[in-house]
Amino acid sequence: MTELDELPLRPELRGRTPYGAPQLPATHRLNTNENPHPLPAELLADLGESLGHAALELNRYPDRDAVALRADLAAYLSRTGGVPVEPAQVWAANGSNEVLQQVLQAFGGAGRTALGFTPSYSMHPIIAAGTGTAWVDGHRAADFTIDTDAAVAHVQQMRPDVVFVTSPNNPTGTAVDLDTVAALYEATEGVLVVDEAYAEFARTGTPSSLTLLPGRPRLVVSRTMSKAFGMAGLRLGYLAADPAVVDAIQLVRLPYHLSSLTQAAARTALAHTDALLATVDAVKAQRDRIVAALPGMGLTSVPSDANFILFGHFADAPAAWRALLDRGVLVRDVGLPGWLRVTAGTAEETDAFLTALGEVAPAHRTTLGD
Amino acid sequence: MTELDELPLRPELRGRTPYGAPQLPATHRLNTNENPHPLPAELLADLGESLGHAALELNRYPDRDAVALRADLAAYLSRTGGVPVEPAQVWAANGSNEVLQQVLQAFGGAGRTALGFTPSYSMHPIIAAGTGTAWVDGHRAADFTIDTDAAVAHVQQMRPDVVFVTSPNNPTGTAVDLDTVAALYEATEGVLVVDEAYAEFARTGTPSSLTLLPGRPRLVVSRTMSKAFGMAGLRLGYLAADPAVVDAIQLVRLPYHLSSLTQAAARTALAHTDALLATVDAVKAQRDRIVAALPGMGLTSVPSDANFILFGHFADAPAAWRALLDRGVLVRDVGLPGWLRVTAGTAEETDAFLTALGEVAPAHRTTLGD
Repeated sequence: MTELDELPLRPELRGRTPYGAPQLPATHRLNTNENPHPLPAELLADLGESLGHAALELNRYPDRDAVALRADLAAYLSRTGGVPVEPAQVWAANGSNEVLQQVLQAFGGAGRTALGFTPSYSMHPIIAAGTGTAWVDGHRAADFTIDTDAAVAHVQQMRPDVVFVTSPNNPTGTAVDLDTVAALYEATEGVLVVDEAYAEFARTGTPSSLTLLPGRPRLVVSRTMSKAFGMAGLRLGYLAADPAVVDAIQLVRLPYHLSSLTQAAARTALAHTDALLATVDAVKAQRDRIVAALPGMGLTSVPSDANFILFGHFADAPAAWRALLDRGVLVRDVGLPGWLRVTAGTAEETDAFLTALGEVAPAHRTTLGD
Repeated sequence: MTELDELPLRPELRGRTPYGAPQLPATHRLNTNENPHPLPAELLADLGESLGHAALELNRYPDRDAVALRADLAAYLSRTGGVPVEPAQVWAANGSNEVLQQVLQAFGGAGRTALGFTPSYSMHPIIAAGTGTAWVDGHRAADFTIDTDAAVAHVQQMRPDVVFVTSPNNPTGTAVDLDTVAALYEATEGVLVVDEAYAEFARTGTPSSLTLLPGRPRLVVSRTMSKAFGMAGLRLGYLAADPAVVDAIQLVRLPYHLSSLTQAAARTALAHTDALLATVDAVKAQRDRIVAALPGMGLTSVPSDANFILFGHFADAPAAWRALLDRGVLVRDVGLPGWLRVTAGTAEETDAFLTALGEVAPAHRTTLGD
């Protein structure tokens, strides 16, 4: 049997392990920020029809430019994002991971640098590594917010080619002020990517960085249908930016990267936007319920604009994680000492989580600095 | 409006245009080597069922490791490839383009080099560029075959990290001798990729490089369901190699890269392998019919093990391409002076192509050296 080390692997990959949440059996899987609500029956019926129709032409290559899907995504963003978005401003790929990989292939890569404010979405540095882009950790304040002046100074000092801002941030949950985004745009000569995977869950009145797009051709806002739309299995991520950014990505995208089935299913889901987004309010209500219950257990959380909550503090977060799993509740240990992350889902999941947490908290909670 | 040049694009991308065959209206599209046979009715019925079932769980992430699909692909290769293949030896992605990109991310990349014997599949150097891998053109003989001794010497001299061999070669059509593949494996300390996208169309008795896998941990054989399986719209490529290669690729693959719909549809198609591959013999018969008809028109072809034929010679291949298009037949100008490439499909398509070519040939044909 050949060992990995015997292969001519790139040196920086040696000793790494594949990214991914542990896929463990658990009654309640609250670890990957999926939307637990089943898809509406009308959508399922329409998916059956549209996928069956797409299957008839599966022997032909898909639309390489996904023109119809991009028009539908632009219409959705125009309706909800606070600014008109044209189809030529939109690009879609197999999950926002692939969108971000394409952005880095075009604007990052070997000899170039990306900077992101950690802790944040842990795939950003991994995708940077996968594209040969050097990575610089930006900093956050103790409450996980971005100090604008410090961030601007850091960007001006490091001169990264790509800057990542995750808003709402994952795994901490809080949206970033648009003033901070605008200041970072001015501070960099590179591309500024605002990863808005969880934007639809933001607290009322939180504006999207989409509203900053006019006049900022180096700004990229990425989105996904995995979370609010409840289509994690579909793998459909997208971005909005200046049409020139889309032109640039078409130089590095793999031709026919988006299957006919993906394009058809995404369009059908977008036709049911209102029904799908109805679950967003239900999820936000469960999120707020969890947030409200934590203080009574001697716990706290980071302000959340997402479908998850970073909660603590625990003397030993991995031990608390295990104690919750022992009670059938799988949450995410994101590697932040003292903190765990839980996905907000159905009322029943909240019940189970809060019950388990109530049992676990007394033995595991601590206060910062203990 | 922002111009592409105003963005901080990677310098080597400046001035490039996106890859892809011109998508032109034509009665007969014989330019992208699709399989024109409609999918069998029983398969379409089963796809409706399996996709409908997968849609029920679309709010959940797909199986990150595509375990069931990889087992089905391994079973197919074991049955047809001449050697047992284990599921742990198989990896799948969104088209063989993504498989090859992942191979280059793991074994190529910045500071590393890939070598391929051109003319060959033009995406190989493009994917190399997209991953920061330097590219070296290997050479072919005048008849487009690979001279083993010269190729071995070139590889030994250049010491590439990844070597590509396309067999059957695209766009020229001929399969590569396994002796050549084995000699190239010995000549390199890097990874040898044999791109077998068209393997199922090879002339009877042509062995697959899959049979070379035992004892060769740096050998990768890539395949696709786009061609013989007639599933170009599905975007399902895969590879077989030592399990350690699959481990390496899992370090660079984007998590959840393969949607639930893709996995379900591919498995359903594989359950109909015999019905799908029945079209392969029909396509090969049309290919052989075209090959046999060419000399009567004063034309020639390169020996083909694929579902396409490189045919010539033309004094001005672009002019001949245009003359065929004027007659409703879209073939591919692959940039080889004197040659054009045509996809073999249905009998009706062959009729239309040969009729058009009969009209075009007298004015456009030439002999080599004219």
